Amino acid sequence: MRILLLNPNTSASVTQRLETVAAQAAAPGTSITALTAPRGVPYISGRAEAQIAGALVLEMLAEHLPGHDAAIIAAFGDPGLAAARELFDQPIVGMAEAAMLTAAMLGPRFSIVTFAPALGSWYRDCVEASGMGHRLAAIRSGDGRFSAIDTVASEKEEALATLCRRTVEDDGADVVILGGAPLAGLAARIAGDVCVPLVEQAAAALLQAETLVRLGTAPARAGAFARPSPKPATGLAPKLTARISGTDA
Amino acid sequence: MRILLLNPNTSASVTQRLETVAAQAAAPGTSITALTAPRGVPYISGRAEAQIAGALVLEMLAEHLPGHDAAIIAAFGDPGLAAARELFDQPIVGMAEAAMLTAAMLGPRFSIVTFAPALGSWYRDCVEASGMGHRLAAIRSGDGRFSAIDTVASEKEEALATLCRRTVEDDGADVVILGGAPLAGLAARIAGDVCVPLVEQAAAALLQAETLVRLGTAPARAGAFARPSPKPATGLAPKLTARISGTDA
Amino acid sequence: MRILLLNPNTSASVTQRLETVAAQAAAPGTSITALTAPRGVPYISGRAEAQIAGALVLEMLAEHLPGHDAAIIAAFGDPGLAAARELFDQPIVGMAEAAMLTAAMLGPRFSIVTFAPALGSWYRDCVEASGMGHRLAAIRSGDGRFSAIDTVASEKEEALATLCRRTVEDDGADVVILGGAPLAGLAARIAGDVCVPLVEQAAAALLQAETLVRLGTAPARAGAFARPSPKPATGLAPKLTARISGTDA
Amino acid sequence: MRILLLNPNTSASVTQRLETVAAQAAAPGTSITALTAPRGVPYISGRAEAQIAGALVLEMLAEHLPGHDAAIIAAFGDPGLAAARELFDQPIVGMAEAAMLTAAMLGPRFSIVTFAPALGSWYRDCVEASGMGHRLAAIRSGDGRFSAIDTVASEKEEALATLCRRTVEDDGADVVILGGAPLAGLAARIAGDVCVPLVEQAAAALLQAETLVRLGTAPARAGAFARPSPKPATGLAPKLTARISGTDA
Amino acid sequence: MRILLLNPNTSASVTQRLETVAAQAAAPGTSITALTAPRGVPYISGRAEAQIAGALVLEMLAEHLPGHDAAIIAAFGDPGLAAARELFDQPIVGMAEAAMLTAAMLGPRFSIVTFAPALGSWYRDCVEASGMGHRLAAIRSGDGRFSAIDTVASEKEEALATLCRRTVEDDGADVVILGGAPLAGLAARIAGDVCVPLVEQAAAALLQAETLVRLGTAPARAGAFARPSPKPATGLAPKLTARISGTDA
Amino acid sequence: MRILLLNPNTSASVTQRLETVAAQAAAPGTSITALTAPRGVPYISGRAEAQIAGALVLEMLAEHLPGHDAAIIAAFGDPGLAAARELFDQPIVGMAEAAMLTAAMLGPRFSIVTFAPALGSWYRDCVEASGMGHRLAAIRSGDGRFSAIDTVASEKEEALATLCRRTVEDDGADVVILGGAPLAGLAARIAGDVCVPLVEQAAAALLQAETLVRLGTAPARAGAFARPSPKPATGLAPKLTARISGTDA
Repeated sequence: MRILLLNPNTSASVTQRLETVAAQAAAPGTSITALTAPRGVPYISGRAEAQIAGALVLEMLAEHLPGHDAAIIAAFGDPGLAAARELFDQPIVGMAEAAMLTAAMLGPRFSIVTFAPALGSWYRDCVEASGMGHRLAAIRSGDGRFSAIDTVASEKEEALATLCRRTVEDDGADVVILGGAPLAGLAARIAGDVCVPLVEQAAAALLQAETLVRLGTAPARAGAFARPSPKPATGLAPKLTARISGTDA
Repeated sequence: MRILLLNPNTSASVTQRLETVAAQAAAPGTSITALTAPRGVPYISGRAEAQIAGALVLEMLAEHLPGHDAAIIAAFGDPGLAAARELFDQPIVGMAEAAMLTAAMLGPRFSIVTFAPALGSWYRDCVEASGMGHRLAAIRSGDGRFSAIDTVASEKEEALATLCRRTVEDDGADVVILGGAPLAGLAARIAGDVCVPLVEQAAAALLQAETLVRLGTAPARAGAFARPSPKPATGLAPKLTARISGTDA
Repeated sequence: MRILLLNPNTSASVTQRLETVAAQAAAPGTSITALTAPRGVPYISGRAEAQIAGALVLEMLAEHLPGHDAAIIAAFGDPGLAAARELFDQPIVGMAEAAMLTAAMLGPRFSIVTFAPALGSWYRDCVEASGMGHRLAAIRSGDGRFSAIDTVASEKEEALATLCRRTVEDDGADVVILGGAPLAGLAARIAGDVCVPLVEQAAAALLQAETLVRLGTAPARAGAFARPSPKPATGLAPKLTARISGTDA
Repeated sequence: MRILLLNPNTSASVTQRLETVAAQAAAPGTSITALTAPRGVPYISGRAEAQIAGALVLEMLAEHLPGHDAAIIAAFGDPGLAAARELFDQPIVGMAEAAMLTAAMLGPRFSIVTFAPALGSWYRDCVEASGMGHRLAAIRSGDGRFSAIDTVASEKEEALATLCRRTVEDDGADVVILGGAPLAGLAARIAGDVCVPLVEQAAAALLQAETLVRLGTAPARAGAFARPSPKPATGLAPKLTARISGTDA
Repeated sequence: MRILLLNPNTSASVTQRLETVAAQAAAPGTSITALTAPRGVPYISGRAEAQIAGALVLEMLAEHLPGHDAAIIAAFGDPGLAAARELFDQPIVGMAEAAMLTAAMLGPRFSIVTFAPALGSWYRDCVEASGMGHRLAAIRSGDGRFSAIDTVASEKEEALATLCRRTVEDDGADVVILGGAPLAGLAARIAGDVCVPLVEQAAAALLQAETLVRLGTAPARAGAFARPSPKPATGLAPKLTARISGTDA
Repeated sequence: MRILLLNPNTSASVTQRLETVAAQAAAPGTSITALTAPRGVPYISGRAEAQIAGALVLEMLAEHLPGHDAAIIAAFGDPGLAAARELFDQPIVGMAEAAMLTAAMLGPRFSIVTFAPALGSWYRDCVEASGMGHRLAAIRSGDGRFSAIDTVASEKEEALATLCRRTVEDDGADVVILGGAPLAGLAARIAGDVCVPLVEQAAAALLQAETLVRLGTAPARAGAFARPSPKPATGLAPKLTARISGTDA
């Protein structure tokens, strides 16, 4: 099974970390192709950046999805998720959605813990769009001060563990998701310090991608995610244009 | 007052119609600048096209918003609306959201009537994202067959009027919104044939833009729509890059 | 355009303030007729008073609405709003609903800040009846101690500004509405002290009334706000009786 | 135990029927005082009439509640219910709310069957205000043609039984409420023709009133239904003025 | 009228208390048969225990319900409630549901106060399953330390009264339910110390059982609570097997 | 990885089919232990049977879960799911919940298609308890007539495929779940006849069990699914008693 792991941020080191964590969770026989966004911002932290990144995701998928069995949009917040599901035939997994659906099997209510306050409002949109708002206990975030996006997970490890404990005690969270691609891999390190299950976002995404591939459903030919009718498009990336105009096969 | 009316589709004739209808509703002293998308598709009919168009909306706003008091995203479905509100200081109005909020003052439950079935699923997302799902009676659409997007409103006038009447009788709609930019101006022509108020989308958008400008609130410096902190961006349109990286002033 | 601004409270000084603030927001050519309730209480602060005031609103509208293009029920809490929409042909605007719908374009979640705790529970009913409960961050109120209803806005200006700031920080409000007719005009004075947009209730109501008039929809002949069939009525005010029994034209 | 049964309509024959049905359900030792509205309309069928009737309910309660242990507002739609609960010390029961809460113990989802289409939209508001919207299967109504309000129940008996059966089969109702005071007593006559429990509104109201009296809770001194602080009132009925201004004891 | 009061816990002293409190609330002519679970745990405090107890409830009902007009499942949390309603013809009342429905007539939002934190999560499921989640202000619980389940109500009386006051002030509760069978009878003792109505769970259950009996509806022959078709069953208690296999009459 | 697949029905042939379908979906290295309920009914079709089966599930898990990495409750409707999660340390998967969460990645709204009408009402409870009610398009069921539970899937194959197509066209389902253990394996046979993805329940359950095992979270020591404190229990199965009383290790 070949999974395309697509980081819509421009931070290659974060991509590397996501790939490592995903690979550790994968079943035998799963191979991962990891990609970093060729343009955009080092890490997405809001709606505007996600809007831009989501369009880029479509461009990257049009280029790189062929030859893979499924793709992961590896930014918590899932930029472009519904759009990609509509446009492409293979299963597409959003890292936040995968983490939330997985968390739903581990407890009635989950919290999201992240490193910067600005992420909270955007993540809330994502939770609602995923239809998981009724399960959200709280979104808790650190103060947003850190020296580099590459190292924020280790810099803030202790503070984030404390936030996890507080959201269990004060918000009644039954499960905690550490959200934000730069925090990939952190769950395993602090799980022993938190009394409820911690969902590792990159592992959840990989595992749900495997689930969808093995389930083996055919692409929708009706409903919300049926591929749109071919339509002329101008000024877009060639392979994306080909996909939209139905000249890609 | 200067309002930027931005059509994220590439159909100039639709832009022209939107502008005409908006201008008819405007108060004395309001001027409209109408823009057509320089790339993309003739009319957006789904999530993938909206994802791309929404990113383009940000690019167009970064370029053209200066000098205007507010902007209208003149595609029903409101691509890029929340993103634009976050990134820019002036009020941004979405044509669908404006129509729905206006409809809320005319009856408890509204329906959306449009010309193509594919629009329905995407519009439903938009209704939910606007927090208006509890008021939606139904989305009803024509069969999607028409000779040209420029003329769909007149070609289908009778069929759409019939759908309006049916959604009143069968779905219990108290108000009807004719949704989809190509239908701008249609409400006035068929209002006499429908027993409940018809909300004209382009007029509602213009009027709500005027409302926000005259209300005169300052841009948010906290909360969901506070401008994000400056951040390096690569590979994006120059003025959008400037806005994201905070070098635009 | 002629707008009837109807204060269902007996405080003429509050009516005067509402009129002034509304007039400042109005477009050229809009004239306002302001009316004060001839009986009832100085300011409505609960369900019982609103029930009585709402019936009085119908009586006042039956008497004074002819000759106007729309009416504003200028008490936050909107007594009699749905009833008036059902019974009369012209658009009717509720000050709370108008403020909330306007706020919805300025941020995902709003708070209401008011001057007396007793108002909170009644306002909550109004928020729910308007279908805006999912956007409410919090209702925060002062301690209710003030020397006179005419001067409560200036007496409590500082305390109310503090409540605005706290609801942004602690409740996550993206927009704040200063609710309660006696607070009309306060938003402009304290906007500089609060980091999110403040919606001025009287301005929002006037602007939404203009919106509905310019939209120019015909009265509903079906659905929730269709005028009821004529019915004999006894013991009510003559013009209200005439309206209910269909002998008013 | 003394229960005040207050019909906010002017039809004395309907009052008589409500009293008879309520009396049949009452426990030994319960006596009923039945009152008919001295002004208003023969039967309330919408929001405007309910707004007026609700104010009248307060006036009637201020006059007649003393000496009773509880009161029933005996119009389906519950005009003035929350207002009355706030203003008076004794338990107040709404006939629609009582029927819906009782129905909740007999099946997950209920339908309301009534005799005139105009009632449906108003009843829907009542269901939502009672927080029971998530349990509503449907509101079904007859065609509204009948010779007299006194005889509508017998005139339409067969048609209403058919509607009950259809809402079970087509809407999935697990329980049916025959709503509208003129239908009091009908449930017993057609229960044998319907496969799910039929809730008799007048009996449910009486029984819930007894429940609240026997429960014996003290009046709220805090929260939503705490009695408002005394306030000057002008132009209202003397006993209502006394109650509002706190000079009634 | 004969009511079966069934305690699914093994604590006979708690059964005794429930019976006493219920009997005090009963109308003349109501007799109560009280039963204690023959196996299980002294008091149910979670989902696993409730799952087991709910199955036992069915067994006890199959054995003892004949000859009674209705039954009360007298554990807050209502183990087996929907199952029992489906399987048996007589009305079945859940103590928690009865308390919540009764509370709904006394204020918009209620809190549950109980003696042990572990109960909270399970009670929350019960509130949601009863469709009352939108009215829940909070669940507040003591520290769970007490010497014996028989005496927890008196041991913790003061602490529980304090929790009641705090949930009124801090959570905005308009009504409070003291939940948990061992707290039966406590409401009357502390009602004077709390500013909002306290609902006595055992009284509410008895009164709602009387309500359903006097309402006199026939058993559902369609819908959610229609008795299932006969089906072979193996290895279950004889009378339960008879009921499931339709050989009980 | 060792997965316990537990059929709470007494039909061994259904267990066999569930095991076969699950095994086909499993990753290399996963082994399945399949168990059939030793008592109860051939197939659960309502709340009463599920209440009993859920208690039996706990008994079976107490006996057989040791030595396994996770368990599947292989009845659509998930009897005992929350109870089992609370009482045991290993991940527990419900077949209905797993199918619904998986479906959530394949389309916004799903329908459940099953073979007997009686299942619908119970399944609806399950959908709501899983927090997926907002995504449910419809539950559609066959007429319930079939010669044997073992062969219902093949007997009704054509009728069920027709229901799938109708729920796509008429209810707007984007995904369909064939629900009910006897239908295991049917999805693959009719997928070609339906235009949207069909989720195979037994495969989804197995894959989500693998996901949870590979995710490797520790058991909750706080929150809703923390193991209850040890408590004396009488009259239950020995290993279940040991687990409840904390003497099982």
